[in-house]
Amino acid sequence: MPVNLSLPDFASLHPVKGVQLSVVQAGIKKANRADLSVVLLDEGASVAAVFTKNRFCAAPVIIGRQNLAQGHGIRALMINTGNANAGTGEEGMMRAQATCIALARLLEISPEQVLPFSTGVIMEPLPHEKIIQALPLALDQMGESGWGDLATGIMTTDTQPKAYSKTIVLSNRTVTLTGVAKGAGMIHPNMATMLGFIASDVCISPKLMQPLTERLANASFNRITVDGDTSTNDSFVVMATHKAGNPVIEDLDQGDGKIFLDAIQELSVLLAQAIVRDAEGATKFIKIRVEGGKSEPECLQVALSIAHSPLVKTAFFASDPNLGRILAAVGYAGIEDLDPGLIDLYLDDVYVAQKGGRHPEYVEAKASEVMAKSEILVRVVLGRGACAQEVWTCDLSHDYVSINADYRS
Amino acid sequence: MPVNLSLPDFASLHPVKGVQLSVVQAGIKKANRADLSVVLLDEGASVAAVFTKNRFCAAPVIIGRQNLAQGHGIRALMINTGNANAGTGEEGMMRAQATCIALARLLEISPEQVLPFSTGVIMEPLPHEKIIQALPLALDQMGESGWGDLATGIMTTDTQPKAYSKTIVLSNRTVTLTGVAKGAGMIHPNMATMLGFIASDVCISPKLMQPLTERLANASFNRITVDGDTSTNDSFVVMATHKAGNPVIEDLDQGDGKIFLDAIQELSVLLAQAIVRDAEGATKFIKIRVEGGKSEPECLQVALSIAHSPLVKTAFFASDPNLGRILAAVGYAGIEDLDPGLIDLYLDDVYVAQKGGRHPEYVEAKASEVMAKSEILVRVVLGRGACAQEVWTCDLSHDYVSINADYRS
Repeated sequence: MPVNLSLPDFASLHPVKGVQLSVVQAGIKKANRADLSVVLLDEGASVAAVFTKNRFCAAPVIIGRQNLAQGHGIRALMINTGNANAGTGEEGMMRAQATCIALARLLEISPEQVLPFSTGVIMEPLPHEKIIQALPLALDQMGESGWGDLATGIMTTDTQPKAYSKTIVLSNRTVTLTGVAKGAGMIHPNMATMLGFIASDVCISPKLMQPLTERLANASFNRITVDGDTSTNDSFVVMATHKAGNPVIEDLDQGDGKIFLDAIQELSVLLAQAIVRDAEGATKFIKIRVEGGKSEPECLQVALSIAHSPLVKTAFFASDPNLGRILAAVGYAGIEDLDPGLIDLYLDDVYVAQKGGRHPEYVEAKASEVMAKSEILVRVVLGRGACAQEVWTCDLSHDYVSINADYRS
Repeated sequence: MPVNLSLPDFASLHPVKGVQLSVVQAGIKKANRADLSVVLLDEGASVAAVFTKNRFCAAPVIIGRQNLAQGHGIRALMINTGNANAGTGEEGMMRAQATCIALARLLEISPEQVLPFSTGVIMEPLPHEKIIQALPLALDQMGESGWGDLATGIMTTDTQPKAYSKTIVLSNRTVTLTGVAKGAGMIHPNMATMLGFIASDVCISPKLMQPLTERLANASFNRITVDGDTSTNDSFVVMATHKAGNPVIEDLDQGDGKIFLDAIQELSVLLAQAIVRDAEGATKFIKIRVEGGKSEPECLQVALSIAHSPLVKTAFFASDPNLGRILAAVGYAGIEDLDPGLIDLYLDDVYVAQKGGRHPEYVEAKASEVMAKSEILVRVVLGRGACAQEVWTCDLSHDYVSINADYRS
C-alpha cells in the first residue's frame, strides 16, 4: 500500500488546450489491459525531455533523442507498457521505428515528429505489430479529458495512478498544468524506471523548454531512489502548447516565469515523490537531508549513500533505531577527508549523534517513536561547509523482494 | 541455510606453533554466549593487517592501525562480539584503550602490542568493564587447539563457523596454515563486516607480510559483496610465527614462496567465499566474471554494479531468468564510452545475449535450468579489451530483510 498517497480524483485533472489523449488495449503482454497510450499535440507545441543515462538505453530512448534533435516539431507521443524494448539490439530499433512510421502515416506527419516510450520487461522482442494494429482505434478515441486514463495506462508495478493538475493565473490569463508519472521500482537518479509527462498550455519561449526540463528533473525525479537501479527507459517530457494567451514567458526567474516555474516544479516534485510513496513494498517515506557539506555534489553523494544502504532501509522497515547504520553509510560514501568527529545526526527532532558519537541526552525510546512514523526526516550535518542537498527514498521490505522476485510471473 | 558450505571439522583444524587461543563468556550483550576471544602470539611473530576503508571506522580499527604502526611486535589479539564500538566518539577510543591496557598488564607487555577487534551493534557504548573482568579467565584457559572455538566465538549473524586449515611442505619442513573468518551481512569490498584471521608457523621475511596481506585481501575478501554496505570494523590479519623451520621465504613469486602464497591464498578465498555462502538469507552463490574490458578497474566496476543490483539479486532468488536486469546493471555501471552493441552475456554455458541483444538461439528454458542451481556463473564480455575481473555474491531473499529488520531484537 502506498505511503500517504491519495488516489487522484480524475475529474480534477484539467484538460490542457492543444493536447488530446487516448489509451487502448493492444494486447502487448496481457489481454484486457490498457497498455498503449497516444498523446497528440497541436501544431506549434514545444517539447523537451531528459532521458536515462544508462548506456544500455532502450531503443525508444535512442529514437526519442534523435527525433527531438531533428527539431521538426513533436506532434505525438506513443507509450506502451508490457515491454521495454531494451536489450533488443538492431531488431529493437527497427521495431520501434516501425511503430513511429505507422503512427506518422495515420496522422500524416513525419516519423521524426513522434516520440516513442516503452516500459516493461527488458530483452524481449517488442510485439510491434500488435501496437501498429491498435493505433487506428487509439486515434478514433482521442479526447481532451483522458489524463486519468493516461496515468492508469502507463502503470506497470505501480499500485495506483499518479497524476496532478493545477491552474495558475499569469497576467489575468488562466494557465493549466497537468502531469502524470509511473514507476515503482528500478528507481534511481538519472533517472528512475519512470516515465513522467507534464503538459501546459502556457505561452513560453521555446528556447526555455530544455533548460526548464533539466531544472525540473534535477529538483524532482533526480532526487528519488528506491533501489539504486537506473533503468534503461526513463524519460521525463515537458510539453507546452502555447494556447493560454498569457504574455510569452522569456525568463523563468522573475514575474510570470517564476510563478510558472514554481507551479510546474511543485507538480514535478509531487509526481516524483508519488513514485517513492508507491515504491515497490514501501511502508515509509524517508527524506534524507545532508547539510554542512563543502559542495552540493558531496552532500548528494552522502545522501544517496544512506538512501541506498540495504541495512539502513531494512532498519526503517523494522522501525528499529539501529542508527549506527546511517553513520556507517556516511563513512563509506567516498569522501576521503571526512572527519567523523564532526558529524551530527538527527531523526526528525531527535538529536541522535553529536560529533560522531551518541548524543549524551539521546534516548532510544524517542528515536523509536520517530521510526514508527510513516514520514521520517533523516538529517546529517557534516560540519565541513554551508552546502546542503536532499533526496527521497523508502524502506526495504519483504514486499520489495516478493514483487521483484515475482515480477514476470 | 548456507549455500554449499559444510561445517568445519574442528578436529581437522591444525594448531599453529606459537599461537594460543581462548574463548570465554564476558556477557557483553547476551548471557551464556562465548563473546570474547583472545589470541596470543609467541615473541617474534610477524603480524600484518588491512582494515576497513570506511571513514567512520570503529575505535578498535583506529587503535589497531596505530599499534601496528608502532612496530613493537604484536603479542595479542582480543576480539569481542555483541558491540562494534563504532560511532562511539572519544569515549569509545578510551574504552577500547582500557581493554588493551588491561590485557597488556596481565601479559606484562605494552598496550601497543595488543590488537583489539569488535563486531556487533554500532553506536552503543562498549561494556569495557565486562571485557576486562573476563580477561583473567581467558588467559587461564589458553590452549593451542582452540581454532574451532575461535571460529565460533567471533560469529554474529553467521549461521555457522568458518574455518579452514592445511599443511604444506616447504623444503622438507611441514608448514601449517589455519584461518577463521566471520561475517554475513554488511559485506562489501574494502572491506566487509568481516573479521578474518590466518596464522601460519611459516618462516617468512617480515617485510613481505604487509604486501602479502594486501595481495590476499585483494584476491579474496575484497571480491565479496552481499549488500554493498562497507562496515566500520572490517579487519583481516595475517600472522606468521616463524616456527616451522623452513628456509626463510624472501620472495612470494617463486619456489617455496610461491607454494606458500598459493596455499594461503586458497585459504583466504575459501574463507571469503564462505562468508558469501553464509550471507544473510543467501540461497545461491553467484560468481560474476567480467571479461573483455579495457582495464581491471572497469571490469571490477561492472562486476560490482551487477552484484549490487537488488533487481538482479531478487531475480536470482526467484530463479527467474529476467536477465535484461543484468544488461541494465552493465549499462549504469558508469563506463561513459561503453558500446552496448558489443556486449555478450552468458549464464553458465547458456549464451544469453550477443552484441547487446538476445542471442538468436537463446531459449529461456535453458536459462531457467541454470537459475535453479545453487552455484551460478554470470559472464559478461564487454568487447573492449583483454582485462577480466571476478566477484562473488549471493541473491537477495526474504530472509535478508527478516534478518536485518530483526537484528537487534
